[in-house]
Formats: sequence, structure tokens, C-alpha cells
Amino acid sequence: MTAGFQLLLEDFDLEVKLMRNILGANDEIAALNRKMFSACGVVVMNLMGSPGSGKTTLLEKTLARLVDKIKIAVIEGDLFTAKDAERIERQGVDVIQINTAGGCHLDAPMIQKACASLDLNAIDLLIVENVGNLVCPAEFDIGENFKAVVLSITEGDDKPLKYPLIFKESEVTLFNKIDLLPFTNFDLQAAREDLTTLHPTIKIFETSCTKETGLDDWTTWLLGKVAR
Amino acid sequence: MTAGFQLLLEDFDLEVKLMRNILGANDEIAALNRKMFSACGVVVMNLMGSPGSGKTTLLEKTLARLVDKIKIAVIEGDLFTAKDAERIERQGVDVIQINTAGGCHLDAPMIQKACASLDLNAIDLLIVENVGNLVCPAEFDIGENFKAVVLSITEGDDKPLKYPLIFKESEVTLFNKIDLLPFTNFDLQAAREDLTTLHPTIKIFETSCTKETGLDDWTTWLLGKVAR
Repeated sequence: MTAGFQLLLEDFDLEVKLMRNILGANDEIAALNRKMFSACGVVVMNLMGSPGSGKTTLLEKTLARLVDKIKIAVIEGDLFTAKDAERIERQGVDVIQINTAGGCHLDAPMIQKACASLDLNAIDLLIVENVGNLVCPAEFDIGENFKAVVLSITEGDDKPLKYPLIFKESEVTLFNKIDLLPFTNFDLQAAREDLTTLHPTIKIFETSCTKETGLDDWTTWLLGKVAR
Repeated sequence: MTAGFQLLLEDFDLEVKLMRNILGANDEIAALNRKMFSACGVVVMNLMGSPGSGKTTLLEKTLARLVDKIKIAVIEGDLFTAKDAERIERQGVDVIQINTAGGCHLDAPMIQKACASLDLNAIDLLIVENVGNLVCPAEFDIGENFKAVVLSITEGDDKPLKYPLIFKESEVTLFNKIDLLPFTNFDLQAAREDLTTLHPTIKIFETSCTKETGLDDWTTWLLGKVAR
């Protein structure tokens, strides 16, 4: 018992050190990605959220509103399937699928590699849909200009305080599936207060893709990020 | 650029090896936990699911139905807060809070340590509510007798195929928030088919905690796991 535990503790010490190296090396590649995106004049959004928060549907609706106005490409992160990439491709934009083979987040080298297949100079906005996970993706800089987090109303109003890092890291939060608000006990005011306590300058949108609510405001804001 | 990348690749090679060690060491402690649970006659359920899938509310409803029948204790896994543990404590059971300080899953040593504060001989059922995450918790054996995964209807019917490991590892899946089915495009039959293709013997319950649907069937089944 002690021997196993000792091995474990040593491994965990090593894990902490290695995690620092991994994150450090990731940050180096992220910085290179950021330089490359800037040189090509492409704005990059890292779109995050729990499984089922509605990222892909939001993305479909967003693309439908913006494809005639700006050039957009999408990188889709998934554990195994290409289901989301197939959905996005139907919107008439270039899509690169990254399968993490079970991995819980995208990292900067994955993005660097995926970008080799894109003509970045021909793109205004690159949207990266991260793996569905409210924890790990927030820890990995991929070289994006800003992070966005989608929180479904059905997930509950306690999520900003329970998963603070992702909300601190994100420039914008979308309270999504707002049409389901009457069927839940989600307290919008409490969630807004918790969110702005965590991150005072965070931008908040309330969206519903089934009822097409809030999507024009959201895409106008997003367009503003590209026009700058 | 090459230097940074090389460093990264070496770190990733090391990470893969270390991950094997970490998982190996975790499995050793998990085996010890399992032996300890068996010796004390306690059945352990590892309850997993996305953030906001409804694990804690389901647990409240489950406890309300079972506290008069069997002795139950709960271990609550959360990144930072004790919000869930406070809710569970009101059900009149012993609760141990584990804060992972941002970590995305519970592991066997955390459970081993938490159990030092519990009188396992006095407990029939120990329920471990894992961190809200559909990816990482499935990779870590904590010494449980069985895993259960909660999938909210609002997360979408594509989740079993997109996050297969957790559904393969779990003995039972709860399609939760079933009352919201009419307001979504969730295809119950398709989800059931995908799930049973992945895991032919998986047990499926359809539950709603707001409408109190399916909870008696679920708790009867759970009671059967303890009585064995």
C-alpha cells in the first residue's frame, strides 16, 4: 500500500513539473500561432462549452448570418466522430476536423497543424469549436484572439462559480437555449451577477437557436471583432 | 519554431509514458479501495455526467427515497465550491467534499483519503458524485463497483457516439430531464440504439426530477445493487 502510494506521489510530483513544461511548450506554439494569425489578418475565436451546450447549432446559425459578409473557416474539435464537421460543412465554409482520440481539449500544436491545410490569407474569421468540456479547454491557449463560452440554461445557474476558470478566461458568454428558461429554475439575474463578479468586463448574450433569439446581436458583435 | 516543437514532442512522449504510470498507480490504489469496500460490505457507485446534466438533483431525489431503507454516504467532487455538498448534507447523510482545485476528475487516491473520514462498516451504499465532465472521469478507476452516467435530454442524442468511453464504462445510463423532451429534437430511439450498439448490456432509465418521473424504477434498481 505504501509502495504504491509512494510511486503515485512521485509520479504526481513529476506530473506537476511536466504539466508546467507541457503548458510552457504549448504557450510557445500558441504564441507562434498568434503571430501567424496576426500576419495573415485573421481573427480567431476559441468556442468552448459543456457537451450539449449547443455550440455546433449556434455555429450553424452564426455562419448562416455571416457567410455573405466575411470569409470564415472552422476547425472542429471532437474526440472521435466527424459529426459536427459534417454539419458545419453544409454551411458552405472550409472545415478542418481534429479528432483528439479521446483527448479532452485542443492544444496549440493541433491548431498549428490544422492551419497548414487552410489558406489563412483568404480568411477573415477562424472559429475553433473546442471539445465539449467546461474544464480542460480553458487551460490551453491555442493562439486565439479571444475565447467564448456557451452555457446552456439547462445546465443551471451555479456553473460560473463551479467552473470559474473558463468564465474568467472568456471575453464573452452566451446563455444559450434561453427558450427553455420557463421550464427550469435557472436564475438569470443570479447567474449574471456571479459572472460579472468573476469577470467584470465579460460580455453576455442570451441566445436561442430554436427560437432565433439574440442571434443578430451576437453576430453583430462578432462581426465587430473582425472589422477592428 | 522547430526547437519549441521538438521540446513539445519530447514532452508529449514523456507525457504518454507518465500517463501510463499515473493510470497504473491509480489502478493500484483503486484495487486497494475496492478490497476495502468489499471487506466493509459497502457498494460504491461512481456517478458521472456533464456539468448541468442534473447529477446533484438526481442524487437529492435518490437519497430522499432511500435514506430510510439503507445507510448511505456521499463523496462530492467539485473543482472549488462546496455548493453540492451543502445540498446533499440537507438530505441527512454523511458527505465528504473533495475539491480538486481545478482538476477535471476524481482519482483513486482522493477517494482513499476521503474514506478515512467515513465509517465504511456503517454504510451500505457510497455514492461518489464525480466532477462534471463527460471525458476525463471515465479514465480513472476509483475502486467503485459500478459507474453510472447521467445524460440530460437537452445535451442532444449524439452524445453516446461522441463520448463513447464513458458510456462503454458505465453499467447504467440515465436519460435525465426527460420532461424537456418535447422542447428538444432529441431522438430517444436513436440514442437508445447508439447506446446499446456501444454497450449491449447497458441499463437505461428515463428520469425527470422536476416531474418525479422514473425515479422509483431507478431507486428500486439501485437498491437491488446493494441487496445483492
